[in-house]
Amino acid sequence: MSEFSIDEKRGLYRAIYERRDVRSHFLPAPVPDDVLLRVLDAAHHAPSVGFMQPWDFIVIRDEATRGAVRENFECANRKAAAIYQDEKRSLYDNLKLAAIMEAPVNVCVTCDHQRNKGAGLGRQSNPTTDLYSTVCAVQNLWLAARVESLGVGWVSILDHDALKATLKIPAEITPVAYLCIGYVSEWGSQPELEKQGWENREALANLLHHDRW
Amino acid sequence: MSEFSIDEKRGLYRAIYERRDVRSHFLPAPVPDDVLLRVLDAAHHAPSVGFMQPWDFIVIRDEATRGAVRENFECANRKAAAIYQDEKRSLYDNLKLAAIMEAPVNVCVTCDHQRNKGAGLGRQSNPTTDLYSTVCAVQNLWLAARVESLGVGWVSILDHDALKATLKIPAEITPVAYLCIGYVSEWGSQPELEKQGWENREALANLLHHDRW
Repeated sequence: MSEFSIDEKRGLYRAIYERRDVRSHFLPAPVPDDVLLRVLDAAHHAPSVGFMQPWDFIVIRDEATRGAVRENFECANRKAAAIYQDEKRSLYDNLKLAAIMEAPVNVCVTCDHQRNKGAGLGRQSNPTTDLYSTVCAVQNLWLAARVESLGVGWVSILDHDALKATLKIPAEITPVAYLCIGYVSEWGSQPELEKQGWENREALANLLHHDRW
Repeated sequence: MSEFSIDEKRGLYRAIYERRDVRSHFLPAPVPDDVLLRVLDAAHHAPSVGFMQPWDFIVIRDEATRGAVRENFECANRKAAAIYQDEKRSLYDNLKLAAIMEAPVNVCVTCDHQRNKGAGLGRQSNPTTDLYSTVCAVQNLWLAARVESLGVGWVSILDHDALKATLKIPAEITPVAYLCIGYVSEWGSQPELEKQGWENREALANLLHHDRW
């Protein structure tokens, strides 16, 4: 396997620096099956503990199903908003935090803790490494989507029990990420929460330690 | 932000498909500071719930510290090996699962659950999303390392309490990933655990669901 060319390197770094958590500006244009499969195959090539591959992907296009997930989000978001007051509450209420109906495709990425692939290798010291593997798949998906000009928004504000009921996810399976995916009309030059004044980026130097904390 | 060129797209997909969890073939050549900083900055540009950026990076080069971590690994690995029998045990015993001393740099990536950046946005339905954000940073690091021709191995088999003691990590902080990083003499054409016959890759089609599980 040869070294990466300058253009290939730039492609990886552009994907990392230009990736956004997209909540607005989704276009209704459908996502072709072959493009979606490329992105899902990139996810499937994430690292996993013991080569366990604990993930599944539920691709959701059905409007009624997405409607139920949107209701779930709105209910969870009303509860979440209640902890903020005054200016922070106004700011929170103005944030667009999900695009479940606007994005033409939603994907739920799950983790099967019981999957016997990998025979438990690497999970005895820390069994939650199966969740970590699943998140690696989500990040691969997100970066592959970026080079395909597809926006992805990760909706964290959901009641997971209700989500499992809606999607008929078995009891022993954990939904890890609920993603809204579609082409977008514009890309923000910075993260939306930074642009809106919710939070700023920490300096990397403040997060580095040498040899010990 | 323009579309990605064919070469740039290929760079991202090559990084995803040619990334390996590297345990062998590390070279002693030092990793220049500017290269390591590029890789860490890529990690720092991962998505995070509420723009929380809950991660820290401990860069470990000190031999005595790495020696203590290696002892930790060896102890944890003896316990882990005990669950396998017969052929699987022989196979397990022959796997090389860590390169703590051979790789010139180790990086511990941690998660600060108390970090007040992001003001809790997105964490009320599922507080473990801070761990998920930290794993996104690890995957960015891994892919950036690949385009820099740096191998990365994630050591899961560690007693985390002992690791925290060695690295003086505060009680409220969770070590998420312990990574061995360095240039390598060769890249495997497939995952090491697949090559060694420990586990095979599932077909993506078996992991796809439509509209519901």
